[in-house]
Amino acid sequence: MGNSFGQLFRITTWGESHGGGVGVVIDGCPPRIELSEADIQRELDRRRPGQSSIVTQRNEPDHAEILSGVFEGQTLGTPIAILVRNQDADPEAYKKIVNIFRPSHADYTYEAKYGIRNWQGGGRASARETIGRVAAGAVAQLVLRRLFPAFEVVAYVTQVHEVIAKIDSQRVTRADVDRNAVRCPDEAAAKIMMQLIDDVRREGDSVGGTIECVIRGLDAGLGDPVFDKLEAELAKATLSLPATKGFEIGSGFAATVMRGSEHNDLFETRDGRVRTTTNFSGGVQGGISNGEDIVFRVGFKPTSTIAREQQTITSAGEETTIEPGGRHDPCVLPRAVPMVEAMAALVICDQALRQRAISLGAEQ
Amino acid sequence: MGNSFGQLFRITTWGESHGGGVGVVIDGCPPRIELSEADIQRELDRRRPGQSSIVTQRNEPDHAEILSGVFEGQTLGTPIAILVRNQDADPEAYKKIVNIFRPSHADYTYEAKYGIRNWQGGGRASARETIGRVAAGAVAQLVLRRLFPAFEVVAYVTQVHEVIAKIDSQRVTRADVDRNAVRCPDEAAAKIMMQLIDDVRREGDSVGGTIECVIRGLDAGLGDPVFDKLEAELAKATLSLPATKGFEIGSGFAATVMRGSEHNDLFETRDGRVRTTTNFSGGVQGGISNGEDIVFRVGFKPTSTIAREQQTITSAGEETTIEPGGRHDPCVLPRAVPMVEAMAALVICDQALRQRAISLGAEQ
Amino acid sequence: MGNSFGQLFRITTWGESHGGGVGVVIDGCPPRIELSEADIQRELDRRRPGQSSIVTQRNEPDHAEILSGVFEGQTLGTPIAILVRNQDADPEAYKKIVNIFRPSHADYTYEAKYGIRNWQGGGRASARETIGRVAAGAVAQLVLRRLFPAFEVVAYVTQVHEVIAKIDSQRVTRADVDRNAVRCPDEAAAKIMMQLIDDVRREGDSVGGTIECVIRGLDAGLGDPVFDKLEAELAKATLSLPATKGFEIGSGFAATVMRGSEHNDLFETRDGRVRTTTNFSGGVQGGISNGEDIVFRVGFKPTSTIAREQQTITSAGEETTIEPGGRHDPCVLPRAVPMVEAMAALVICDQALRQRAISLGAEQ
Amino acid sequence: MGNSFGQLFRITTWGESHGGGVGVVIDGCPPRIELSEADIQRELDRRRPGQSSIVTQRNEPDHAEILSGVFEGQTLGTPIAILVRNQDADPEAYKKIVNIFRPSHADYTYEAKYGIRNWQGGGRASARETIGRVAAGAVAQLVLRRLFPAFEVVAYVTQVHEVIAKIDSQRVTRADVDRNAVRCPDEAAAKIMMQLIDDVRREGDSVGGTIECVIRGLDAGLGDPVFDKLEAELAKATLSLPATKGFEIGSGFAATVMRGSEHNDLFETRDGRVRTTTNFSGGVQGGISNGEDIVFRVGFKPTSTIAREQQTITSAGEETTIEPGGRHDPCVLPRAVPMVEAMAALVICDQALRQRAISLGAEQ
Repeated sequence: MGNSFGQLFRITTWGESHGGGVGVVIDGCPPRIELSEADIQRELDRRRPGQSSIVTQRNEPDHAEILSGVFEGQTLGTPIAILVRNQDADPEAYKKIVNIFRPSHADYTYEAKYGIRNWQGGGRASARETIGRVAAGAVAQLVLRRLFPAFEVVAYVTQVHEVIAKIDSQRVTRADVDRNAVRCPDEAAAKIMMQLIDDVRREGDSVGGTIECVIRGLDAGLGDPVFDKLEAELAKATLSLPATKGFEIGSGFAATVMRGSEHNDLFETRDGRVRTTTNFSGGVQGGISNGEDIVFRVGFKPTSTIAREQQTITSAGEETTIEPGGRHDPCVLPRAVPMVEAMAALVICDQALRQRAISLGAEQ
Repeated sequence: MGNSFGQLFRITTWGESHGGGVGVVIDGCPPRIELSEADIQRELDRRRPGQSSIVTQRNEPDHAEILSGVFEGQTLGTPIAILVRNQDADPEAYKKIVNIFRPSHADYTYEAKYGIRNWQGGGRASARETIGRVAAGAVAQLVLRRLFPAFEVVAYVTQVHEVIAKIDSQRVTRADVDRNAVRCPDEAAAKIMMQLIDDVRREGDSVGGTIECVIRGLDAGLGDPVFDKLEAELAKATLSLPATKGFEIGSGFAATVMRGSEHNDLFETRDGRVRTTTNFSGGVQGGISNGEDIVFRVGFKPTSTIAREQQTITSAGEETTIEPGGRHDPCVLPRAVPMVEAMAALVICDQALRQRAISLGAEQ
Repeated sequence: MGNSFGQLFRITTWGESHGGGVGVVIDGCPPRIELSEADIQRELDRRRPGQSSIVTQRNEPDHAEILSGVFEGQTLGTPIAILVRNQDADPEAYKKIVNIFRPSHADYTYEAKYGIRNWQGGGRASARETIGRVAAGAVAQLVLRRLFPAFEVVAYVTQVHEVIAKIDSQRVTRADVDRNAVRCPDEAAAKIMMQLIDDVRREGDSVGGTIECVIRGLDAGLGDPVFDKLEAELAKATLSLPATKGFEIGSGFAATVMRGSEHNDLFETRDGRVRTTTNFSGGVQGGISNGEDIVFRVGFKPTSTIAREQQTITSAGEETTIEPGGRHDPCVLPRAVPMVEAMAALVICDQALRQRAISLGAEQ
Repeated sequence: MGNSFGQLFRITTWGESHGGGVGVVIDGCPPRIELSEADIQRELDRRRPGQSSIVTQRNEPDHAEILSGVFEGQTLGTPIAILVRNQDADPEAYKKIVNIFRPSHADYTYEAKYGIRNWQGGGRASARETIGRVAAGAVAQLVLRRLFPAFEVVAYVTQVHEVIAKIDSQRVTRADVDRNAVRCPDEAAAKIMMQLIDDVRREGDSVGGTIECVIRGLDAGLGDPVFDKLEAELAKATLSLPATKGFEIGSGFAATVMRGSEHNDLFETRDGRVRTTTNFSGGVQGGISNGEDIVFRVGFKPTSTIAREQQTITSAGEETTIEPGGRHDPCVLPRAVPMVEAMAALVICDQALRQRAISLGAEQ
């Protein structure tokens, strides 16, 4: 039951990296939203392998087919099923590690949980699983643009290993982000990052980093305390992505060394509406959006797949070594950018519909 | 609908800081677990106000009454309803700020979401809401001890503002934690922290910090990919607590500056079972527990309530100033320790029951 | 987890017939609905024991206390917790049957499921459990009257054993229903029913019957195919009430002996809106309301508790006989009328909020 | 969100009658269940059109492709996605009724709910939607046979219009049922039914009837009071099927004319286990299975599609007449038999997993 996400705008993803394909069913999408396969393909192309020299060279066109829920270019209100076939699967490459647990992969834990696993590639734990999320996130963004004309979600790489970019979250655009292969809108930092990723790959190693995401143009009032607070949902959404290790909103862990008198965001009336003078809250107070930009960050570990010999054990518990083959990313962050945006859009879309449900207006 | 948490071990909390009381209904607790009001009271006493000089002096006995679901000292398998009456409520103290939005509180966002709010104290956004969580967490811990005899969850304060403690997560016990009022098992650091909190309170200010939590004694196999991964659930659980700004598991954000060759946890066979030589994964791989200690950290902001004049606006949008009254904690961390443990236990208990459901055992 | 009902307007009931009490938590009630304890008490008084000579004489005032979620006479949007204490509990009366399974009661199945049961009265299987439903149903009706000014739900007894009433579902009012103790608005039939129930009680026996329910004043468009069709939800809702054995909507089982050419409801335009010339559909087509009255019926078995010696077994499997004591209803139908109305209101309210969530309007 | 069913064994169906196809995702299927496409195809072949002269002649092979969740002939514990392409779709046939509401179809209500509909065939309201249910039901039956070696679910036609069959629910087998095209194991009645259906079709009319279903071989203890009682779940499951109007369990509506002294099922010890001497309860007491056969009945209306001119209106509200084309069944019951079995299996499988989750076994 862990393969569904959202309450009202509810997605269910399915699929392994090797097998018939991967996909998603979206249940609860409002009717009469204009939607085409191109809307989905645009986002899938941003996460697909082989799009640049710094990502995995697995060659997957990742063509999305809409199987249901859309008629004459508009959503029907019925479930939208989207299918992407696996094409460049290479199960043979994995035969030699069928009984070996790759360090910091999910091989051992899937075996422990299910007593069986698809050893051809990452199986369900592969990042290919995120195709369904990105496809559904594209639909969520269309719904959100209908609900909030100024809605935007923009994620970007702010850090790769020790290279830290300087980015103004209030101004950065998606065009800025997509201008380079590493998806870091600080061009100077981006260059160093790309060089680093290239070096690391040649060394058979990998690196991690941080992605920041900003959501703009929302109304105050989104988020459903006490458990489905907006930051709680965003944290769950993004920490369910592969390779993530941490989440923080607004001031985040930096808040731990501030005093209340510094950290409190003071209210003022600006441009005729309620605003705060600072945004340490990251756009969320008491678990509910306050109309400021929502800003959060996600930390990613270095890719577990490295081209170096490592100590490990077989499924029988015997010591052995492994030098994992298979194509992989030396740094997952560039391709994770659209994943983070998708998860953010899914959370917000679900909360926006939930808020509509209880807002009866001043009808008395 | 955001007031329920968990799928199989499912809790629903209710209540405002001022009103009839607060409480919780636990649905899905297995039958025949020994349970008494004392089991619950023990945990509530660790989070209740007035327990030491460094926490709020609101005087609430927080006596828990079990209304249903328990018979002759054992759970029935039916819903367990627990009620705690509000006693030392002081609505008059809030009358002067009925139309004023306190900075970085939830006053404005509740107003924006619901068009109404209980202005007496924090209402639903008060930390009193966590009573139901802590009560339910006490029950979850009893279930977990039945399922995993070596189960333990221990949270502790590792940092208050810039004071950082040194604590060995593998050895720390709950007795160590409860030895001092700040719940930091590094006695030297604890003393400085307590002095700092005392100073800060006298200055009318507040501080934040970090809580670490370790979960021991679990089997491998808990967690439900792809969305209900263990770290994702823990992140949601803890970031739904008041005043939280960040979550990280295992290496956390420190992973972003490591290389894969450093970060990968190598497998070995130790004491006859699968172990890792390091635990940067924090006990979770691919969203599933691997049998190592689960270790995560939560960052808390400085309390929003401070005894200093601050600029803000009225609900009509007019500029004003506020010096919030009401009793409050200059640092929420000591009382947040049992909250973090409770949320961790709720997540693990839910996942443990989910894992039982799909484990059919050896093929017949 | 089976103690919650509804997705958006979600209730969780708790409590046993003997113990601290019974109650309900309503999560998802829209804010700013006017609500008082009197609104709830009115409905509880219609289902409480001892209200007339033909129902159980257990003396329970069933006073409802609202513990949370309401402030200054309006709902807050936060969970509404309602508590009713048990008062006239009589556990001693049950001591003699602590190890005996009463025929057609839930004693044996609760024992089989949970390995434990509260043998004092019906425990969780008691009809007292429906107090929470009726209380929540009262709130749902207030929400529905806000959403649909002409909304009405009226249930009534149409049959007791072989006595069948003649009632015009299009005209019957709640005042008609409450005019007599058996809640059958056909006064001539009602008299015979009451005499029959009285006779049956004196004979130590019991009877069942049928309740019909009509819902008026709704818009077309409520119901959520393909699983949460309106009739499916109404069937689940009512067949979760104690003593129910069957459900039918519109033509119901009578449809099985009709031809399509007779059964089809022809469309016409009447009073400026889409209407059907007949209503064999019972107001629901394809699982969605069509704007006609929703009409359904629920069949109830004769009460299992009878004052006659019956063969049965002990929990050890030994044969014995039983003559159940305890106070009970010789016919549950009069008190079940408000229960059916409550369940209907809960289903419709949930679906109405769900429909609001996806109706984005013609904003393009 | 209404396109998912089940809590632990959770299915999500998608697809319209005309478009890319129909399918289902099963989330929560236990791992290591042997499963092949043939297991699914066998059930689909029993519900597919064109299988005999008395059902619709639409020619659909309904070939099932398993896209994920199965590896080397066993389930992985990950989502199982199943796809069936639409082939013999005939949208042109529907062009003439694009703006006309067919009587007692879902055309008007879908339009009212969503403001849009796929007018090509029944769209989402088509019986093709049940393909996903039947496919998932096949998987559920495999899981149930693993959990309960003697598990069997057998549905059969007991009535078509006024022709009533005599069938012993305790002995009937699936082989008996599939022996004739109408799926009525009383051969004499079956012959009359088939003749009737043939006559009715030639007259351009349609008929309904009743299906009974028996579930054997279960343990006592399944069902989750108070809302997810077994009969409540079975009622919802079956009344979410197209063309259903009523549900009853055990004695059903006949209970309304019995006395408690007749209706109570007396307990006895038989063959070393708890049994009842009669089974008016239909195998369920207090919402929980008692180990007897579970027996329920579902009433179906005559098919709405008839080849006769009928009065109706256009979407603009103008009066018109219609003589619906399209291929259809003059009586849905023969093909509904596997649908009822599938829904029964889905309910029981879900409840069986839920019961496993809370059964912790003997106290340690």
